[in-house]
Amino acid sequence: MFAATVLTLYPEMFPGPLGLSLAGRALAEGRWSLDTVQIRDFATDRHRSVDDTPAGGGAGMVMKVDVLASAVDHALAARPDCPVLAMSPRGAPLTQARVRALAAGAGVTILCGRFEGFDERIFEGRPVEPVSIGDYVLSGGEMGALVLLDACVRLLPGVMGAALSGDDESFETGLLEYPHYTRPVEWEGRTIPEVLRSGDHARIAAWRKSMAESDTRLRRPDLWERHEGARVGRPLARGDERD
Amino acid sequence: MFAATVLTLYPEMFPGPLGLSLAGRALAEGRWSLDTVQIRDFATDRHRSVDDTPAGGGAGMVMKVDVLASAVDHALAARPDCPVLAMSPRGAPLTQARVRALAAGAGVTILCGRFEGFDERIFEGRPVEPVSIGDYVLSGGEMGALVLLDACVRLLPGVMGAALSGDDESFETGLLEYPHYTRPVEWEGRTIPEVLRSGDHARIAAWRKSMAESDTRLRRPDLWERHEGARVGRPLARGDERD
Repeated sequence: MFAATVLTLYPEMFPGPLGLSLAGRALAEGRWSLDTVQIRDFATDRHRSVDDTPAGGGAGMVMKVDVLASAVDHALAARPDCPVLAMSPRGAPLTQARVRALAAGAGVTILCGRFEGFDERIFEGRPVEPVSIGDYVLSGGEMGALVLLDACVRLLPGVMGAALSGDDESFETGLLEYPHYTRPVEWEGRTIPEVLRSGDHARIAAWRKSMAESDTRLRRPDLWERHEGARVGRPLARGDERD
Repeated sequence: MFAATVLTLYPEMFPGPLGLSLAGRALAEGRWSLDTVQIRDFATDRHRSVDDTPAGGGAGMVMKVDVLASAVDHALAARPDCPVLAMSPRGAPLTQARVRALAAGAGVTILCGRFEGFDERIFEGRPVEPVSIGDYVLSGGEMGALVLLDACVRLLPGVMGAALSGDDESFETGLLEYPHYTRPVEWEGRTIPEVLRSGDHARIAAWRKSMAESDTRLRRPDLWERHEGARVGRPLARGDERD
């Protein structure tokens, strides 16, 4: 069973949306487990402080390395087989390849920050890897943990209804997914592309591949460049979204 | 007041984690509002169907354009001043600049998909813009909506405690944020960098700028390239994270 552990100042945020729908059903069925650890329980002073002012001055507060390390040690003792990721905008961008690798493993321990961020020494003194879900700033790591767990859980065995679903999706091939259509055939004068109604499976597959390629080239030149680099054997700049 | 409206098949996921901490306090204080619209209420058949099989075949189900359009029309009638975004891995990547622009506006309406995705015609027939929070696949748009709203809400007037906080953060300058440190000065033999303890504000500012630059160059060559492109006046490939 995939074991998720979240280290947070807001354990009451979990399972939250992960308790519903696909992930919630899988949780109820025992396909994954979710534990939370209250970081504040590892504070050592009488005020139970978890943060302090930034060295060198500046706004906001920084999470204390000694408290973080104790919480991480606790989680590592309980689940030594699970990698520890910290949600941080300074981290490596999360990719579908990484999600797939995590979902194939024993589980994941996620350290959620609040305030201005973590004392940097946590990344030197403990096996904690910073990961970012995107190039924007959130009020804390909890939303990132929800995103990461949702992405992993849907890939666990037995969670997605149709076993086939997932292979064609965006990023699984290093490209955006092709556009989808369903009934009605005509809606406000707009019809489903003729090829999709042809019943010609080879033509449909060719059209979808060509749409995935042209949409990626147009909308995400950065993804397209990496895809082409991978195809011709150039080393990738980052990530590993090869086929 | 910033007006958030979420069109979803899972209204019970909201406010969820947005009801706690910073965003929850701001919601209780009336600094933003959150409404949900159940997409299924706009289904027209007796089974209240919201999805159908993909034209051209394949796994999964596609959300019906007629139902989506009715839900969007309903939201647009209520809040014509709010842009409609649809969470989709085929969308433009969310950036901090976009978050800042949204937070400065009247609010946002967010369309959440489930299953394989939306019938593509919704993007042609209605002013709906696809937006992606990252290059990974989620079980639905709801997690993306939570992320987008959390990012916006923290920027609303009066939400963040210290008015200063936020300006130095990752992506606000087109760079990753510099590393943080706080007490204890020494932890397991690792000390806070001397410069941060010097009290010399000019040296501290110079060190932080140099760390932000070198960490961005090392960890995120893609961000660095865009930053340098903006600095020397080259057009940006995507986004607009200028200073």
